[in-house]
Amino acid sequence: MKAYLFCSQLCRISNIICVKQILGYNSFGLLNCRTSHFTSVLNNKWGTKKNHRNIPLQSYTGIMADPKIEGILAPLRSSVKEQGDLIRQLKADGAPDLDIKHAVAELKLRKKVLEDKELSFQSNLATFDRAKMEDLLKRRFFYDQSFAIYGGITGQFDFGPMGCAFKANLLHTWRQFFVLEEQMLEVDCSILTPEAVLKASGHVERFADLMTKDVMTGECFRLDHLIKAHLEKLAADKKTSDDIKAECRDIVIKLDGMNKEEMHAVMKKFNMKSPLTGNELTEPIEFNLMFATQIGPSGLIKGFLRPETAQGIFVNFKRLLEFNQGRLPFAAAQIGNSFRNEISPRSGLIRVREFTMAEIEHFCDPNDKRHPKFENVENVELLLYSACNQMDGMGAERKTIGEAVGKGLVANETLGYFMVRIQQFLIRCGVEPTKLRFRQHMCNEMAHYAQDCWDAECLTSYGWVECVGCADRSAYDLTQHTKATGIRLAAEKKTDPRIVDVVEAIPNKAVIGKKFKKEAKAIYDKLAELDANEISDLEKALEASGSFELNANSESYMLTRDMIIIKRYQKTVHVEEIIPSVIEPSFGIGRIMYAIFEHNFKVRENDEQRTYISLPPSVAPLKCSVLPLSGNPEFQPFVKQLSAELTKVDVSHKVDDSSGSIGRRYARTDEIAIPYGITIDFDTLKEPHSATLRERDSMQQVRIILSELPCVVHELSYNKTRWEEVSAKYPKFEQQETKT
Amino acid sequence: MKAYLFCSQLCRISNIICVKQILGYNSFGLLNCRTSHFTSVLNNKWGTKKNHRNIPLQSYTGIMADPKIEGILAPLRSSVKEQGDLIRQLKADGAPDLDIKHAVAELKLRKKVLEDKELSFQSNLATFDRAKMEDLLKRRFFYDQSFAIYGGITGQFDFGPMGCAFKANLLHTWRQFFVLEEQMLEVDCSILTPEAVLKASGHVERFADLMTKDVMTGECFRLDHLIKAHLEKLAADKKTSDDIKAECRDIVIKLDGMNKEEMHAVMKKFNMKSPLTGNELTEPIEFNLMFATQIGPSGLIKGFLRPETAQGIFVNFKRLLEFNQGRLPFAAAQIGNSFRNEISPRSGLIRVREFTMAEIEHFCDPNDKRHPKFENVENVELLLYSACNQMDGMGAERKTIGEAVGKGLVANETLGYFMVRIQQFLIRCGVEPTKLRFRQHMCNEMAHYAQDCWDAECLTSYGWVECVGCADRSAYDLTQHTKATGIRLAAEKKTDPRIVDVVEAIPNKAVIGKKFKKEAKAIYDKLAELDANEISDLEKALEASGSFELNANSESYMLTRDMIIIKRYQKTVHVEEIIPSVIEPSFGIGRIMYAIFEHNFKVRENDEQRTYISLPPSVAPLKCSVLPLSGNPEFQPFVKQLSAELTKVDVSHKVDDSSGSIGRRYARTDEIAIPYGITIDFDTLKEPHSATLRERDSMQQVRIILSELPCVVHELSYNKTRWEEVSAKYPKFEQQETKT
Repeated sequence: MKAYLFCSQLCRISNIICVKQILGYNSFGLLNCRTSHFTSVLNNKWGTKKNHRNIPLQSYTGIMADPKIEGILAPLRSSVKEQGDLIRQLKADGAPDLDIKHAVAELKLRKKVLEDKELSFQSNLATFDRAKMEDLLKRRFFYDQSFAIYGGITGQFDFGPMGCAFKANLLHTWRQFFVLEEQMLEVDCSILTPEAVLKASGHVERFADLMTKDVMTGECFRLDHLIKAHLEKLAADKKTSDDIKAECRDIVIKLDGMNKEEMHAVMKKFNMKSPLTGNELTEPIEFNLMFATQIGPSGLIKGFLRPETAQGIFVNFKRLLEFNQGRLPFAAAQIGNSFRNEISPRSGLIRVREFTMAEIEHFCDPNDKRHPKFENVENVELLLYSACNQMDGMGAERKTIGEAVGKGLVANETLGYFMVRIQQFLIRCGVEPTKLRFRQHMCNEMAHYAQDCWDAECLTSYGWVECVGCADRSAYDLTQHTKATGIRLAAEKKTDPRIVDVVEAIPNKAVIGKKFKKEAKAIYDKLAELDANEISDLEKALEASGSFELNANSESYMLTRDMIIIKRYQKTVHVEEIIPSVIEPSFGIGRIMYAIFEHNFKVRENDEQRTYISLPPSVAPLKCSVLPLSGNPEFQPFVKQLSAELTKVDVSHKVDDSSGSIGRRYARTDEIAIPYGITIDFDTLKEPHSATLRERDSMQQVRIILSELPCVVHELSYNKTRWEEVSAKYPKFEQQETKT
Repeated sequence: MKAYLFCSQLCRISNIICVKQILGYNSFGLLNCRTSHFTSVLNNKWGTKKNHRNIPLQSYTGIMADPKIEGILAPLRSSVKEQGDLIRQLKADGAPDLDIKHAVAELKLRKKVLEDKELSFQSNLATFDRAKMEDLLKRRFFYDQSFAIYGGITGQFDFGPMGCAFKANLLHTWRQFFVLEEQMLEVDCSILTPEAVLKASGHVERFADLMTKDVMTGECFRLDHLIKAHLEKLAADKKTSDDIKAECRDIVIKLDGMNKEEMHAVMKKFNMKSPLTGNELTEPIEFNLMFATQIGPSGLIKGFLRPETAQGIFVNFKRLLEFNQGRLPFAAAQIGNSFRNEISPRSGLIRVREFTMAEIEHFCDPNDKRHPKFENVENVELLLYSACNQMDGMGAERKTIGEAVGKGLVANETLGYFMVRIQQFLIRCGVEPTKLRFRQHMCNEMAHYAQDCWDAECLTSYGWVECVGCADRSAYDLTQHTKATGIRLAAEKKTDPRIVDVVEAIPNKAVIGKKFKKEAKAIYDKLAELDANEISDLEKALEASGSFELNANSESYMLTRDMIIIKRYQKTVHVEEIIPSVIEPSFGIGRIMYAIFEHNFKVRENDEQRTYISLPPSVAPLKCSVLPLSGNPEFQPFVKQLSAELTKVDVSHKVDDSSGSIGRRYARTDEIAIPYGITIDFDTLKEPHSATLRERDSMQQVRIILSELPCVVHELSYNKTRWEEVSAKYPKFEQQETKT
């Protein structure tokens, strides 16, 4: 529990990932798995992403080439490595958990210092103006707080027309990229989930954060946030003694590893009160992050809004395997909303209460995690920030996935294949390649059942934000649901014929039937279910004492020696039952959207007021604008016909016939990321009818015959041709845009 | 309340529609707006839908041409009409509500008798085997009950790979058809909704059903269902006296119009007990159908899962209008899940607790509901079942929308335009044109603010099921949210300059400020808000008594004559504030899917075991199968390459290289509605490489060069060519399919 609580305090969307890792054994949590700041990368334009393999290595690596900067970072790196080595030693020596926990907390602090210093050298991050971007996104209604006219609800957002269209295009691309291309089995499962399912998955017991309440007002505080703020304030106070200052800093370091009782002790020791009212606070309360409700009118069926979409796939595993004609491997996928009742959500789209996920569960033989398409991607390079490098204070390194899997850095081909596909998908949708890395979970972060886990992290003004998790989750979930339901979620694997020993406890039905009457059947069923060890125990007990107490259906039955015959024999089998392993890429759609907004928010050179969003055309909300130069009624028929023709070829577009100069209107369409603009002008009226086509990022314009335009824009919008080709083919239109 | 309860007992998805109609004044509910059985139509194949305007009129009309059948129906029709006329008379005479309610209940009964008789003449309905279809849908995992391995939850369904892909294609088509084509503003709003929003919309108070509970077990029963079942059983009992039998039948007729107290009286009079245990039952309980939860950790912010998506659009109206540069008309759209905690859900996908809706809110000038594209559709014919015909016992009639709007049968052009678009969309997606009608709400069903409302109903084995509602909702919702928030959800309309009288209550700030100090501002604000009538009252009071008690911010202030100057003058204005009217087409996606399944479930001639689903290619879950004739390894490279090429042109497909005859595999792909099948056989190995292409419905096959195949299948899949053209162009492949 403690371990989970720790983790949940830090993780964001991928609580998804983290809660799963923790749901099992995890002796201590480690590191900021929410947004870890590390390595420096160079800014770049998304337009170059297609050829990211050609970008010089140094622009990708996390290590700054500047020797002056490296000189500043060197002692910080050593400091991290020293602590990493200490932890390795402690573990090798079998040191107590508590000692390791404290050493890990210290490691984390040192890493943070290093990362902050590294990010301070990032000039492009320093000049990024988040407030300016958020103003644009809100003003043009990409998204806004939900129910704003009612005062809004924190942690909930509504996507307006442009945000919604971008999201729909992103999800459409995801479907094409994963479901279609990999022939996955997509499902669409219920959001309302009965308690039993989430008990089995571990969420009912462990999906919680610690909080405390103001006893008078009921105001809630996340306990770790409250303690940290209190102690930092105290440590900064001149009147505080040096001893107390040191103690405060020590506690803040260890806070992430503390359990409920330890935190409560700290609260009491420092006599903490509500920072808002000065009132007393309650003892720490475990607050489950799932939204609870009742299904049906009786109030008896407790249900939750799902905290992740994955469980819907696991509980349908049997049907999906059947649909796949019993064969492994196969992957199922799901796009849908999940819900987490965060105690105090913030950071905009990064941490919310209601969010869209796209999850893949790839089921495979636990002993064979090769991937048939791995050879197609083995030369693709990724920026890998391994657990080892994290312990050593090193930066991320650029490696081909073939090398990474070959050397055992990435656990297996399937995991590696998906990491490449995740990278390709993110870049196609507008993530800046130089602001993308894969960070490996350290063994301390991973659940005991996970074999390896890499998060795709995007660098934003909030630091490195986990946007996609990619984990090898072994057989954990299928095993849990099998235990809870008694329905075996397993696959059969053909094997060479082999001889196996079989042992059975055969009931003497005459005797049992006579004694237990109607209940005999429950006994027969239970006997048939016993495994070899259990039969062995039964046999020993019957031999030793002459009787055995069998538990079936919550009843207990006393069996005697005359009721059972133990039969041992050999048989030839051709199949083997296996519980598949699961490789899970899990996408947080809102976070990906946010990272793409940041990576594509641009300011025109020499005009700070003119901002725009350079989304790739395939995911841009609208592909094209249609602008009559003026209100001249002669333009109208051309606008109308062009709009109809664009619709025919599936080009979403916006007609803007409002007044205002053409430059002003271009600026407005640039703001909402429309990549192409068509202007109907006086030359359009002449034969052959033509219009100008403008590209958003370069602001170049060409003149094209009207009848060809819809097709050209269609091809540009769906990556079938590139602007460079179009601008080479058609005559340039040189007229300057009027400044806004 | 009573009126709503009545309606909710009958309505299904479009409780959506119905609760809205009822949320306001509705003196009495009327008629089965859930599934009304009426008129008979002829069966037909979806393939003919494209040319539905050419289908002979009689195949569309609801009135049977057979004079013998008409002879049987004639007295039933007269009986309905007699009662309809009685109601008209009662209303004209201003008869008491109760009398009208009883007359309406009787009308409903007579209509039901007529409709049941009509449907009994429908031969194709009689032979439809729902169990067989549901078996197929479950076996091939189109959908199944959610959490089935945990015993399942009623009213919740998971869509498997085929159901999910069909649904995704349906929604993609919807987006192309409405959002893209009509340039709507699509939004994506939160599901979790704070109480205040749903209080304003009326759902908190009125969105409820009556139920009763077993006092011992807590088992819940929908009260109207329980009473009906009890009385019908009693009436069927030989021992029951004729008087009691007549009373039972009378109550059953009147049940829909009864309120809580009346139903309770019936329960007591007949001493009703739990039908399952014989235990006592509680008094009737109003059960709100929304799922409740708490937002945030304090437990203080009450929230609900939204019962419809529409409110998300209304609360964002201001931003949407701004996005549209302040202009009317415009339409917003939303696709998303909604939730209703049904007391006892049943009828499969027709009545569920969690469902996907696609809603459009078209905002327009209340005084100008013309539609610019109406002229494009005015000659399209619809099967219209008017309120008048329902009262008269007549069937539905086929009319062009131009005629219907022209004669005032359909209230306005915008409503009419959307009705046509709804019909076109449904038919494109696989609804059988002869099983589609538009039923008008009778004035008794409509809320006072609704101007007109037509439901698109599909004929299924459950009777006529409302799948899409299309209502003119006037300004109801915007007005409600304006009242609740004080934020004016209105638009400005340019007008000719006109002179208006203005009256203002000007505060004497020196006097007021001195007397009320800090509270003066509240008084100034309140004075500025007063309308002409209120100022008039204020003026009269000051003149009469010298003082006036002003209420502001829950405080009361005594104003005296020296504090106020009343100013009257004229000014010229160029705009007028209007609260837009809303036309709302609201689609129940699950119901549409269900109707399409029924309309496209087919049995091969001469082979009852061989069933298939003839979905239109554009919405079929997968477009194509790729089948190697046998396990011959030489086929593998062709299969692999073809699969890759199909992916490139966005053709979703399934490779089935399992053993089993080709006929058996075709049968399997027919079951999951795959329209086209490619078989790689020994001739494929020869140059030029070719394969067979088979069409699902006709089972015709042609032989096509391998390199041309992906493109041909792409064109077939996206309606760019038709099978008839392909089969004419390429050589027939005559080999018979092996029977399964």
